[in-house]
Amino acid sequence: MARRLGRRSVTFDRPAAIRETANLAGPMEFDGPLGEYLQTRVDDPYFGEESWEKAETRMQEEALRAVLRRAGLQETDIDLCITSDMLNQCTSCSMAVRHLDVPHLGIFSACASLTEGLYLAATAIDAGTAERVLVDVCSHHEAVERTYRFPTELGIQRPPTAQWTATGAAAFLVEPDAPGPRITGATVGRVLDNGIKDPYDMGSAMAPAAVDTLVTHLKEFGRSPEEYDLIVTGDLARVGSAIARKLLRDAGYELGDRYTDCGVLLYDAERQDVHSGGSGMACSGLVLSGFLMHQLKEGRYQRILLASTGALHSPVTYKQGESIPAVAHAVVIEAP
Amino acid sequence: MARRLGRRSVTFDRPAAIRETANLAGPMEFDGPLGEYLQTRVDDPYFGEESWEKAETRMQEEALRAVLRRAGLQETDIDLCITSDMLNQCTSCSMAVRHLDVPHLGIFSACASLTEGLYLAATAIDAGTAERVLVDVCSHHEAVERTYRFPTELGIQRPPTAQWTATGAAAFLVEPDAPGPRITGATVGRVLDNGIKDPYDMGSAMAPAAVDTLVTHLKEFGRSPEEYDLIVTGDLARVGSAIARKLLRDAGYELGDRYTDCGVLLYDAERQDVHSGGSGMACSGLVLSGFLMHQLKEGRYQRILLASTGALHSPVTYKQGESIPAVAHAVVIEAP
Repeated sequence: MARRLGRRSVTFDRPAAIRETANLAGPMEFDGPLGEYLQTRVDDPYFGEESWEKAETRMQEEALRAVLRRAGLQETDIDLCITSDMLNQCTSCSMAVRHLDVPHLGIFSACASLTEGLYLAATAIDAGTAERVLVDVCSHHEAVERTYRFPTELGIQRPPTAQWTATGAAAFLVEPDAPGPRITGATVGRVLDNGIKDPYDMGSAMAPAAVDTLVTHLKEFGRSPEEYDLIVTGDLARVGSAIARKLLRDAGYELGDRYTDCGVLLYDAERQDVHSGGSGMACSGLVLSGFLMHQLKEGRYQRILLASTGALHSPVTYKQGESIPAVAHAVVIEAP
Repeated sequence: MARRLGRRSVTFDRPAAIRETANLAGPMEFDGPLGEYLQTRVDDPYFGEESWEKAETRMQEEALRAVLRRAGLQETDIDLCITSDMLNQCTSCSMAVRHLDVPHLGIFSACASLTEGLYLAATAIDAGTAERVLVDVCSHHEAVERTYRFPTELGIQRPPTAQWTATGAAAFLVEPDAPGPRITGATVGRVLDNGIKDPYDMGSAMAPAAVDTLVTHLKEFGRSPEEYDLIVTGDLARVGSAIARKLLRDAGYELGDRYTDCGVLLYDAERQDVHSGGSGMACSGLVLSGFLMHQLKEGRYQRILLASTGALHSPVTYKQGESIPAVAHAVVIEAP
């Protein structure tokens, strides 16, 4: 059984290993600083389909099929498939998995879904309810922008705080006792709302939830930041990660180079015109499945803390004057 | 640890008990055949708020607060809160839990979210990652109709296959070793799509997924239908449950009176003008938290199988010509 460390944190008795990953991404992501760690480049935003939403569905399905292929497994070898996406009513993952013979659970914590999924996969393995679990997240720039904000075709001007929704899908095969980086612990997020109402300023909306999870994690685990080679938030980007760094300092944690953010890492903000940086479920999905997995496998990082962050809004909520709640779930991943 | 029975089914080693429930519902639900088992009647569809969506958010929050109050617990006594709703991007649960100090996981399997949540709660308790788990689902007729179909204000004519989205919220407090009906096993659903494209015919879209889960459950558990006092699907309503009954017969299972459906039970279809019957996450949420819990506590049912069913579509998908995938997750609930 898992060991509880306070109300929100656990260590897993039977650590789940990330045995294999697969990812697909668009040209922006391949042309970014971490492009060399990505696998399949999709240049056509329609991916041969009739709509951006159908392209996202196909990316999701291809990522799931690719991770099975890379691991030499069949669909029927999978006990549980946990997926998420950012389309209205999580439809790209539902549409993708209908073609696969896998038991399926849909989850949603916006861009924090990756770490929610990895936490649930590790829980299932610890409970013995599943042995082989797939976790998959996906976002598609054009499809998600029009789901959350304005019709993408309008080309609405974006303020400097805006983030660039990543195009990509990332799938993870999680198994106990397999070679690969291990998920050894986790801290579940609380939903916090600090009153930000601008859907183009998600970094400010999400930073307090990220810091709440990171500080709770360090306290409940009784660890200092120095016990991690890297502490990385999901997609606060430049605006949000600067706020997070300040809030962490206020809480007594000076993280320096030990802290970074997937939204900062994924793109070259100066060269790629992404304003504050990356966002979308694929943001931390691509950074983990590509760069971070590589560093962990090579032993350059022995232990990292990944806290994906999610802004829990919709066009309906902000048109009704609501502010943007946010959440961050953290998982500890250790080198094999 | 849980014991796996085939790829999709498990029994829990440490059964999670549903210690307490709370629900709120609208006048239609209170005036239905199961109204006497419901708790808090909300006559105003706005629930004192400015919009139907905000009313749904308030119902969700009130259900969570009510279940804590009924159990004599504080927010900080909760280790995990698993919620779902049917608004664009699951916002009513996110907006509701931002006011509560609870670790939160968002899930989404449309109207199958109730049983997904109960399965995950039982898994968490079996793994030891949580001791006290809240599961909450919510739907609001006016808010959900305009999220999934057409502006509710238009009063679009509904065909006979249409279902009536229930207004209500249902919260469940799940704990190990507590008095109350116990979740002793589960079967996770596969996403199936049999080509139905009409968002007003969800029963036909969902019936095959429900039957797939029920048949898999009986086979993997090695049980006959007679070992259950009731086998109840989530919200296939009259159209879908008739199809399910036929498909079950084709598979060799003649269920007779042992089988029913929450969408059939919740309303009086003749008197209440609900066409095929009830739907929405609240449909199985209200039937379980009210009527079924009462029957289990009174010992009228010793063991039931509840398979909530979800139609995984959105206005975007059906406007793009997509058919409607569906899923059903089943949980075994036994009298205390």
